[in-house]
Amino acid sequence: VSSWLPLPANTGFGPDTLPYGVVGNRVVVPIGDRLLDLATALARVDGTLARLVDRPTLDPLLAAGRPTWDAVRTTLRRMLTVDTPEHRRAVEAALRDPGPPPQLPFTVTDYADFYSSQQHATNVGRIFRPDAPALPPAWKHVPIGYHGRSGTVVVSGTPVRRPRGILGPGRYGPTERLDIEAEVGFVVGTPSRLSEPVPAADWREHVFGVVLLNDWSARDIQSFESRPLGPFLGKSFLTSLSPWVVPLAALEPAFVDPPAQDPRPLDHLQPAGQALDLTLEVRLNGQLISRPPAAALYWTPAQQLAHLTGNGASLRTGDLYASGTVSGDAPDQLGCLLELTRGGQDPLRLPDGTTRGYLSDGDTVDITGTAPGPSGTLIGLGAVSGTVMPAE
Amino acid sequence: VSSWLPLPANTGFGPDTLPYGVVGNRVVVPIGDRLLDLATALARVDGTLARLVDRPTLDPLLAAGRPTWDAVRTTLRRMLTVDTPEHRRAVEAALRDPGPPPQLPFTVTDYADFYSSQQHATNVGRIFRPDAPALPPAWKHVPIGYHGRSGTVVVSGTPVRRPRGILGPGRYGPTERLDIEAEVGFVVGTPSRLSEPVPAADWREHVFGVVLLNDWSARDIQSFESRPLGPFLGKSFLTSLSPWVVPLAALEPAFVDPPAQDPRPLDHLQPAGQALDLTLEVRLNGQLISRPPAAALYWTPAQQLAHLTGNGASLRTGDLYASGTVSGDAPDQLGCLLELTRGGQDPLRLPDGTTRGYLSDGDTVDITGTAPGPSGTLIGLGAVSGTVMPAE
Repeated sequence: VSSWLPLPANTGFGPDTLPYGVVGNRVVVPIGDRLLDLATALARVDGTLARLVDRPTLDPLLAAGRPTWDAVRTTLRRMLTVDTPEHRRAVEAALRDPGPPPQLPFTVTDYADFYSSQQHATNVGRIFRPDAPALPPAWKHVPIGYHGRSGTVVVSGTPVRRPRGILGPGRYGPTERLDIEAEVGFVVGTPSRLSEPVPAADWREHVFGVVLLNDWSARDIQSFESRPLGPFLGKSFLTSLSPWVVPLAALEPAFVDPPAQDPRPLDHLQPAGQALDLTLEVRLNGQLISRPPAAALYWTPAQQLAHLTGNGASLRTGDLYASGTVSGDAPDQLGCLLELTRGGQDPLRLPDGTTRGYLSDGDTVDITGTAPGPSGTLIGLGAVSGTVMPAE
Repeated sequence: VSSWLPLPANTGFGPDTLPYGVVGNRVVVPIGDRLLDLATALARVDGTLARLVDRPTLDPLLAAGRPTWDAVRTTLRRMLTVDTPEHRRAVEAALRDPGPPPQLPFTVTDYADFYSSQQHATNVGRIFRPDAPALPPAWKHVPIGYHGRSGTVVVSGTPVRRPRGILGPGRYGPTERLDIEAEVGFVVGTPSRLSEPVPAADWREHVFGVVLLNDWSARDIQSFESRPLGPFLGKSFLTSLSPWVVPLAALEPAFVDPPAQDPRPLDHLQPAGQALDLTLEVRLNGQLISRPPAAALYWTPAQQLAHLTGNGASLRTGDLYASGTVSGDAPDQLGCLLELTRGGQDPLRLPDGTTRGYLSDGDTVDITGTAPGPSGTLIGLGAVSGTVMPAE
């Protein structure tokens, strides 16, 4: 649809996107290159909805459940697309210039990270465990994942201090293998009850929307610590999120059939539901190094959620789960430097003439994302960015 | 010290213990077999401290920092041990009968679980990985751990619904290997800043106190899922805590030298600080099956905290970290059934004539703990209990 509000050509933030974030302690919706103060926009139209977002966080909106999510979105779309004096007054009163940097838009309760790209798992297996089968034995039976540290999930733009860690016997120092992982994150709104698994078919009742996620990783720390309990300090120093949570409703045109699954997944992981045709772009100091395709992920978000709760673990508002590194089949579709450089053996040559195995101090990484919108338009997912600072 | 208040002989909750919990939405302190409503007790003595605990949670007290923790404890001890009419009036106005079951006393933010018993790690290695060295290669260099699910940390008494999970290729069903892990948990009060590791020497500025923890584990689910990212669904269904947080100040007489560490730990894991001489007792349907000794743990709580933050990961009020299964050298000092029954091969024979490999539906497990107090008294840690319910 188009808006009566003049918008820049080809904006990813048209009236079909309408994601949510927090700027200046207010819930805002980016529209074109400006922001709509959501409570102000809704105040004359629906006081109850306006009060729900008259906060410095999305938490109450996330907790309100899907009928409310739909009501807010429907109301907002109507205001922006149906040209009436009332709508113009309400929208114009709520428009803001971009202002200060966005804040983390919700309180992250638990953070779980999956490992759902077959290409990524295969590539990593070949590099880390050259003498074993590339794919772990359970990989096609279980959507493998682990819990990360929710307290160090931060918003895009937060500096990435190079972490110190234990690199090997007797060696504590700054990581020499600082990496990225380009991922898609899913934000849970509606909680579930302890001991009651969430059926795969119900995932859209619980998941509010999508963010981009960079799971910064220190490969040397991770390799040394991971047996037998998995990644810990190699990941827990920082995880960055894009500032705008894009509601699933905006991604309708992006739902596509997932890759074929063989063997057939267990019953509680059925129906698989759909994959999301999001294209990520990874830039290192402004230079495109990869275009990871989320549509290629083997396990779907519905299956990840059904698995996460399959043992009766409950969901809380603010739970975040992520896809794991998104990698495609092609060499320019790999979602981390570990894969792009084969463990640092095969450095990237960048257009500016520099080479990189892993990240250098001062490097800036931007991961952006888009989804197909209605009638050839693009839905923007925004960006998750971070600049590496030297170890302290 | 002794109290003017008549207390049962040999109570673990005398005036040297004074732990904190929440009952009926009030912060309480167990004394003998009764409870003290803390805000009521403090109200006439110190209004500021009283307001801090006039809540349904310990969160504000935890966040207030060590000088405040010390002030509350000192004030309370004086009221209970110095016999004045004012103290009698204040205490008697605040005494309550036990009442409803205790609640989870604080908001658990992140939960990390270590693997700090050399005996446990060795025994588990022999059972799970018979063809590899028993201790993982990094074990003596790194306090190995992982993040668990904070949203399923519950208070003692919460029923333990037998979880379903993926037990092998094509097999989803109730776990056939439901186990316990007897552990000591540490509750963080004072937060730390991102990118600023907490020195080992500072751990008592951050850690408020200690709880008992049962890290319920489904061994079949855990075995199948754990490569390469560690335990996930095999642990995330439930983790139970004892209701009373015992402040570190009450455990002064329990601090002892830890086992010798060889090789010498890295500088940031020094000084090691002290171990805690806590004795746990594990009972299965009322029958003592083990007495795990926390003093035998290889890595100390100071080292665990220094490691957890060694990469710059920040602490939040309510972070919980646990020792991992506590096991000693003797066959009756093992902290989980996996070890006590050698992976179920060697079932336990209980005094009531029954045998157990892993837990049966209807089984109740109680883990209690005590520490040496001043002058031969005992400091009680209370109990963490749970009864297994059949899978739904």
